[in-house]
Amino acid sequence: MKFSERIIAMQQSPIRKLVPYADKAKERGKKVYHLNIGQPDIETPKEFIEAIKDFDEKVIAYAHSQGIEELIHAFIEYYKKHDIYFENDEIIVTNGGSEALIFSLIATCDYNDEVLIPEPFYTNYNGFSNMTGVNVVPITTKAEQGFHLPEKNEITKLINNKTKAILLANPGNPTGTVYTKEEIHMLKDIALEYNLFIIADEVYKEFVFDEQEFMSFAHLDEIADRVIITDSISKRYSACGARIGSIASKNKDLMKQVMKLAQGRLCVATIEQVGAANLINTPDSYIEEVKEEYWKRRDIVYNALQKMDGVICEKPHGAFYVIAKLPVDNAEDFVVWLLEEFEINNETVMLAPAEGFYATEGLGRDEVRISYCINANDLEKAMNILNEALKVYPGRV
Amino acid sequence: MKFSERIIAMQQSPIRKLVPYADKAKERGKKVYHLNIGQPDIETPKEFIEAIKDFDEKVIAYAHSQGIEELIHAFIEYYKKHDIYFENDEIIVTNGGSEALIFSLIATCDYNDEVLIPEPFYTNYNGFSNMTGVNVVPITTKAEQGFHLPEKNEITKLINNKTKAILLANPGNPTGTVYTKEEIHMLKDIALEYNLFIIADEVYKEFVFDEQEFMSFAHLDEIADRVIITDSISKRYSACGARIGSIASKNKDLMKQVMKLAQGRLCVATIEQVGAANLINTPDSYIEEVKEEYWKRRDIVYNALQKMDGVICEKPHGAFYVIAKLPVDNAEDFVVWLLEEFEINNETVMLAPAEGFYATEGLGRDEVRISYCINANDLEKAMNILNEALKVYPGRV
Repeated sequence: MKFSERIIAMQQSPIRKLVPYADKAKERGKKVYHLNIGQPDIETPKEFIEAIKDFDEKVIAYAHSQGIEELIHAFIEYYKKHDIYFENDEIIVTNGGSEALIFSLIATCDYNDEVLIPEPFYTNYNGFSNMTGVNVVPITTKAEQGFHLPEKNEITKLINNKTKAILLANPGNPTGTVYTKEEIHMLKDIALEYNLFIIADEVYKEFVFDEQEFMSFAHLDEIADRVIITDSISKRYSACGARIGSIASKNKDLMKQVMKLAQGRLCVATIEQVGAANLINTPDSYIEEVKEEYWKRRDIVYNALQKMDGVICEKPHGAFYVIAKLPVDNAEDFVVWLLEEFEINNETVMLAPAEGFYATEGLGRDEVRISYCINANDLEKAMNILNEALKVYPGRV
Repeated sequence: MKFSERIIAMQQSPIRKLVPYADKAKERGKKVYHLNIGQPDIETPKEFIEAIKDFDEKVIAYAHSQGIEELIHAFIEYYKKHDIYFENDEIIVTNGGSEALIFSLIATCDYNDEVLIPEPFYTNYNGFSNMTGVNVVPITTKAEQGFHLPEKNEITKLINNKTKAILLANPGNPTGTVYTKEEIHMLKDIALEYNLFIIADEVYKEFVFDEQEFMSFAHLDEIADRVIITDSISKRYSACGARIGSIASKNKDLMKQVMKLAQGRLCVATIEQVGAANLINTPDSYIEEVKEEYWKRRDIVYNALQKMDGVICEKPHGAFYVIAKLPVDNAEDFVVWLLEEFEINNETVMLAPAEGFYATEGLGRDEVRISYCINANDLEKAMNILNEALKVYPGRV
């Protein structure tokens, strides 16, 4: 039987495809430090599970398609703390940030329309655009510039009458880059000039370090009609498995359209919504402490990378990722070699080759994404392993 | 700002659009019996919530994209009871039956490809096909024939080189129709002859009454390579809010493709999976009792309809729905009139106008879907209200 062309065209997750090598290494008794995945090790606030344990409905019934009232309320209150003011009919609860992005693409783009996305980008953006028949047009950014945006004309020359939106993560996954106010305003100008939507994936907004200030696209009243904020509790509350996200926009007509999609899939899991709604009662100190922890880890990773000969990495100010350009011929081969051939005291490290984060063929081949979702001690050891490995890697250039 | 054409083309849920009329009736103090929605009143097995209360992981982490091992195992064991044998790599857990259907369409159809669907059909099929850019070609079935399939040539004449699959619910929502062995074999022959996938939505398979026998498409080895079973725990375990469904096929290559979609959205809510996995420990008597209950209710509804002058309804043998052809000019007007103008002891009834379940313009205007998700006592009262209402309705024909 023939499958659809679109599903055949979908790439396998580049993060997951090397998992068998890690599994084999572990079978041989090797310890693998996983710097390749974005699953935080931080404990989920107890408020989440407490609310679920208190749940005592006799029937696990459909929730409202928009989301349960308590959770919508919790999102509204949450945003207020970030000086963002959404009303009740401007937010819809989604199956994680993933569904929020899929809904955004369907609502703004028809088949074969285009979205601009700064590359390297979160690989699942490829999957979402594939599923929705939208073409990704990459705005290339570079390690040497800390993955900041190019000049305005480098972006506007990519726009044509098929271009409907700019999609970006801020802070960035996989880059950890926090866009400056100037960059945000430049994108605002482009959105106004070319009549584009901005789909802003702001799930890492809590994790901004140093003196950097986070600016949400929701802060720009001038483009309130064309900004869609996609969000998720996964990272800030270390609750990835809850699959609770949101899509929000001050454009109420747009949200009415998105409600049709929400009704089409009936609702988001009821019990996880109950848990998520209660996160409003988590003390603010929780997120503060989590941020401090990631900040400390960012320093460990960044400082270690700075000391490695031939490695290029501008200091990233957010999220919990770093992209490093390595002095190797091919980062994927290097990662396989780390798992198959290298060890220090029977321990090694796993990284995510960055090529899969680029849409432009050939870019990112000598880069890796490092995520710092393991504790500081292990992280020190892992970075030491990387350092020693680079010294002896046969494919070093 | 302009939205996409595809989202504008999506219809609002025809079941939900009359909700404001019901709300207003309730505000005026009227009691409304809801025969318009498929939310069962049956209690969810305690095994579901017990497992969740025992959950004690510190981090609500991403689950495997395929689904947690225990739940895959539970599905495999469940199917065995129905004489269906799936292996571990032939099942993927989905966000309800909805996502299973969306995945099926994406995996089998490209943009503008066609699927044949017997009408009247579950309205969300429209939404799914809209989201995925697939065109629905209806196979019209009629109240007078109990919504059974037409002759083979009536179906094959709808097939062209864009046709990729036949999608159908068995037992049917909104019809309650259970397809006969002969019908199943006819579709098998068509699938073989025209190289089509069969996407079988079998979420109501437990609820088959009278001497009728349920035959799954998974029972036909001859077309194992082209059958996709979409399923859900929502109805059989009265756990609609859990959003736990599955997609399964003996075509392992197909399932590998579908895994790419599953990885793209990361995972299904972890905690609801934990609850669902434990449903394997629900005694078989639970489903038996639920089935008996629906059977009893089906008799109440069907017998009442038989006594109503001018109503056409062939006995439906499954699910918990009935479609009745009423002696009215327009069923939607009738439903609004029931809510706004009619009452018996300050009580009225809400039905779902059936027009929205048809793809062919103009069909179903004098039909309603009645779902029997309320207790037998209330159901008797509701059917009596319908009977009395029909006698005095000004738009009666």
